Amino acid sequence: MTASGDEPGPLEYPLEGYRREGLIAPPGAEPAAHDGTGRVQLSFTVEDKDAPPSQKTVRVPPGVSVFDSASWNGIAIDSTCGGHGTCHKCKVRVSPVTPVTRHDERTFNPNELQAGWRLACLVQATRDHDVLVPPLVTRPKAATVGVGRQVILRPAVQKRYVELTEPTLEDQRPDLVRLLDAIDDLEPHPDLHALRRLPKVLREGDFKVTAVVVDEVLVDVEPGDTTAIRYAIAFDLGTTTVVATLLDLVTGTPVAVASMLNKQQPFGGDVISRISATMLDPAALGRLQQAAADTLSTLAQQVCREGGVDPLHVYEAALAGNATMTALLLGIDPEPLGVAPFVQTTATPPAVLASEVGLTLHPGARVALFPALGAYVGGDIVAGMLATGMDRDKRVRLFIDVGTNCEIVLSDGEKILATAAPAGPAFEGGAIRCGMRAADGAIEVIKLTPGEDDPGVELGVIGDVAPRGLCGSGLVDAVAELVKVGLLDASGRFVTDEVAKELAPGLADRLTYIGQERVFVLHRERVDADPSESVVLSQRDVRELQFAKAAISTGWTLLMEELGLEHRDIQQVLLAGSFGSYLSAASAVRIGLVPTLPVLRIVAAGNVAGEGAKMALLSIRERAGALALLEEVTYVELSDRPDFNDRFVDLLAFPTP
Amino acid sequence: MTASGDEPGPLEYPLEGYRREGLIAPPGAEPAAHDGTGRVQLSFTVEDKDAPPSQKTVRVPPGVSVFDSASWNGIAIDSTCGGHGTCHKCKVRVSPVTPVTRHDERTFNPNELQAGWRLACLVQATRDHDVLVPPLVTRPKAATVGVGRQVILRPAVQKRYVELTEPTLEDQRPDLVRLLDAIDDLEPHPDLHALRRLPKVLREGDFKVTAVVVDEVLVDVEPGDTTAIRYAIAFDLGTTTVVATLLDLVTGTPVAVASMLNKQQPFGGDVISRISATMLDPAALGRLQQAAADTLSTLAQQVCREGGVDPLHVYEAALAGNATMTALLLGIDPEPLGVAPFVQTTATPPAVLASEVGLTLHPGARVALFPALGAYVGGDIVAGMLATGMDRDKRVRLFIDVGTNCEIVLSDGEKILATAAPAGPAFEGGAIRCGMRAADGAIEVIKLTPGEDDPGVELGVIGDVAPRGLCGSGLVDAVAELVKVGLLDASGRFVTDEVAKELAPGLADRLTYIGQERVFVLHRERVDADPSESVVLSQRDVRELQFAKAAISTGWTLLMEELGLEHRDIQQVLLAGSFGSYLSAASAVRIGLVPTLPVLRIVAAGNVAGEGAKMALLSIRERAGALALLEEVTYVELSDRPDFNDRFVDLLAFPTP
Repeated sequence: MTASGDEPGPLEYPLEGYRREGLIAPPGAEPAAHDGTGRVQLSFTVEDKDAPPSQKTVRVPPGVSVFDSASWNGIAIDSTCGGHGTCHKCKVRVSPVTPVTRHDERTFNPNELQAGWRLACLVQATRDHDVLVPPLVTRPKAATVGVGRQVILRPAVQKRYVELTEPTLEDQRPDLVRLLDAIDDLEPHPDLHALRRLPKVLREGDFKVTAVVVDEVLVDVEPGDTTAIRYAIAFDLGTTTVVATLLDLVTGTPVAVASMLNKQQPFGGDVISRISATMLDPAALGRLQQAAADTLSTLAQQVCREGGVDPLHVYEAALAGNATMTALLLGIDPEPLGVAPFVQTTATPPAVLASEVGLTLHPGARVALFPALGAYVGGDIVAGMLATGMDRDKRVRLFIDVGTNCEIVLSDGEKILATAAPAGPAFEGGAIRCGMRAADGAIEVIKLTPGEDDPGVELGVIGDVAPRGLCGSGLVDAVAELVKVGLLDASGRFVTDEVAKELAPGLADRLTYIGQERVFVLHRERVDADPSESVVLSQRDVRELQFAKAAISTGWTLLMEELGLEHRDIQQVLLAGSFGSYLSAASAVRIGLVPTLPVLRIVAAGNVAGEGAKMALLSIRERAGALALLEEVTYVELSDRPDFNDRFVDLLAFPTP
Repeated sequence: MTASGDEPGPLEYPLEGYRREGLIAPPGAEPAAHDGTGRVQLSFTVEDKDAPPSQKTVRVPPGVSVFDSASWNGIAIDSTCGGHGTCHKCKVRVSPVTPVTRHDERTFNPNELQAGWRLACLVQATRDHDVLVPPLVTRPKAATVGVGRQVILRPAVQKRYVELTEPTLEDQRPDLVRLLDAIDDLEPHPDLHALRRLPKVLREGDFKVTAVVVDEVLVDVEPGDTTAIRYAIAFDLGTTTVVATLLDLVTGTPVAVASMLNKQQPFGGDVISRISATMLDPAALGRLQQAAADTLSTLAQQVCREGGVDPLHVYEAALAGNATMTALLLGIDPEPLGVAPFVQTTATPPAVLASEVGLTLHPGARVALFPALGAYVGGDIVAGMLATGMDRDKRVRLFIDVGTNCEIVLSDGEKILATAAPAGPAFEGGAIRCGMRAADGAIEVIKLTPGEDDPGVELGVIGDVAPRGLCGSGLVDAVAELVKVGLLDASGRFVTDEVAKELAPGLADRLTYIGQERVFVLHRERVDADPSESVVLSQRDVRELQFAKAAISTGWTLLMEELGLEHRDIQQVLLAGSFGSYLSAASAVRIGLVPTLPVLRIVAAGNVAGEGAKMALLSIRERAGALALLEEVTYVELSDRPDFNDRFVDLLAFPTP
């Protein structure tokens, strides 16, 4: 029932997810004729009023609707209900023909049905099909989000302005029925808050009102026409940094962005220390939950203030976080995530009311939480896969999110594997002698030149201040440059003074000792400054980095072996997160953090978790796509692999060019 | 979309209700081939291991599942999921064959499918069918509830004890998946509370736990085997009196019952005065809501205390109340119910958390609220119809719930009509000179004998006290007896002293005056006591009763005309509520409150609203039946009928025998 484990599971579980989304027909519907493996091919012919038809062929997991298959691949089909089978607008002609549903019968005449006309949202792609998409009646809005992803706007938050006839003794329909009768494409059910508002708002608004629908819930009714006012907040709930983006759902554009450190920091910098906190003190879970809620609330207030938006007009939020952050936010005991065999409470956290996680938005606002693949490949990575289109690209691509826990995803265009590697804190400056966060004074770029007359050491420092320490990207640069000039050998050991003088006369005096330990001085106040008061890279630092990068490269090496791929087969490496943005691709290649590839194939993907959260808010189809990823991606557990340690030891060394 | 109005609406609305219940296949399912009117006939052949097969033919509205059709008519079919298509046990053979669903394909082989074997819960009865029910594997428990209704126990509250394998690195299924994988017949989704408990309870309970499922929600997981502990509370939320019954859902039996006056009394005795209170004072709605919540909470505590049941083991409640009581409990503005054109906010209130209506039960406990037919035929009457089987009986039956607002339902075994008549407060002792509630000192039974040597007046008085006044049943008796002995003429006027002495010499001295008004002395301290200090029936009291009974009889007269029925066609009159239990059938016939019929056809049905609430807790199929009533029953609005006043005037007089 889950994507965990070695074998791709049967389709049960995500189909259940789809079913809840109204995508796949529940008990009583047509049988799905596929074995749960492989993909089906859909060949779209897209007609256009003003141009010749275009062709596009896509491959999707069996069971996905034709509407989703199109939407996920940027092919627009008319629809206002968003694929719930209620608006009857997403007409396509499929061949071979598929079963006729009740909604098809209401939409098409018998000749059309026989010719293969169907509602695209109700056709499950269970085999290869040709699909004809007629010219669009209305051209849908789209937004570019994530890594070049074109998202057709269809948020869960919908508004419908209606002018109702007033009740009479001949027409005593209940208020709710009167309202819903006037909305032809949605069939929401009301929450209690909306019901409480309904009679007053209808009468105060002279029966001209706007219904506010989130997903399948009527959350409010507002007097007059408020359809132009629709907002949502995307949260990237990181262990270290939390980012909030206020989105205008009408235009699909960001209105304000804010970020801050996660207020859980006092409980420790990484997920393990926060999980440990809950194991040591029964009150810690509540406090961590509160700290996360406070962080989200502070950011929500900030983006609303900056955007000039009333929080009551924020009707939804989406949140991408790793499994521990998600569990802590929901008040779920994270202990089983932290100890073997590393088990989640649930892979698909339910949507919760915003008020349940401390957010003061619209009272009916819910928070959609990204599902997770495993205890260490969480919702943030699923969001990242969505934003980078890991399942929609035919290229062989490797996705790496470097951090204390490093998540790795590899796709050969057909199969997708994911794993997690425990990299430790080196890339965040932890366990590094002069390590620090990427803040003012951190060395983030390093260039070394060996010759007597060369500049020697050139540093890029964050902020207009003197260098104070070394952040992750600086650490990688330092080691890579030292390997390049020969001061570090392939095994990661500093060379002798003699070798140093020969290979890099301009740098040799910087290779010295602090006590018994070999260090390289990156920055010193004066030439004769005490190394222990300078910014240095120590032999132990190099070892820490080697352990970290070996863990990561063992991860992608094992995934590549599973798919039978060589380094040169990788067409793109996506480095996720802020660390990925600052990392030098050349240095990453040189130390072996990524496969040995031309640097142009290595791309900084940015905050893809936050982008994924935005996509989920802009399109319910993309949100369903995130759930589909649980089915498409196979999670590979490394911790019990007998070959892990051998590979790890092999990969401690730096690649020889 | 609703049952209100003159025309029966299309099937959309209740089908939507069914769809939510998982009974009718949603978008994408097989087409339903019926026109929304009339009934279909199902001929069941029920096999038995120990006896020859039995036959039963039932008629149900088109679109109802074969499983429901059987369940509603006391025919048991194997099932553990309760008709959700998930347990695959409710096997029947239907002829003619119906479409094959995906679940049928998983359950039967091709030969069986061709022979017509189907899962009964997924077959919609859209035409006449023969249905073969194989012998039961397990004989289901049943309970007798309502008016002789045999209910097959299948509560929404289900428990499943499971012993799970512990997670390993090879089996990292999330806790929730591990739990749900072990439950083969239910597919609930968890609420947040259950998720929070799950990891701790699983591990503390050594992975031997009991899942608590309410409807389709996993509300808890409990260590060990707690399947024998399952309770729920049925509430009858009356305008005057509120009754709570604590039910043991394992046995289907009541554990404790308690009742008390509705704490909303200070805002007025009837719904109109409470609605008025909310119109005069904006704070009144909140206070009325709180008063209702307090009433329910007090009763819940009382029945749990008396039953020795921990409120945390009460997992659900059901509540039947009229439309105003339901709106006030939910905090919904009742004003549109109180003023023409008398419109409800919703006919189908959503289930709410028990905590949202002030109840401290299990934190996941929900309250299922009965749907309503109209502003004045509320959930209490729908519950009453369920308890009396108004839609399952082939007899011509008239249901009357006498009160300030009197609800009337008439069924000819095929069509069902309902209406409301404004009877006023007379039957509750209001606007009656010596009127009082049915409390200690109230005269509830009266027998008059006219002769000089007869006992004269014989009184039945509540409690061991002297008569203090006259309650509703006493009022009806008084008038009926006075008509019988001739002291009141058919028009409702007291006769002259001369006529009185001639017709009833033993009573004539009791017919006297208070000021200008004619009164009959029912009880006096001494023969020469001042009538104004005695318990009397005044001419004005008689007029009040005439107005009340004329309103009611106009109601059923118009309904009988709609169905083309005469008095003698009525095979049973059901008098609902406590008033109905005390009323003398003979007196009711004599004053024309009910049709002129042999008294044996007139039955006191008791607290049918409360019984309906119990049925909803004991069987989700019966709960679905309550929703189906909205479709089956046509609401007739009397207030705009041009013939209402004529009929009303005609019916003021007492029937001449």
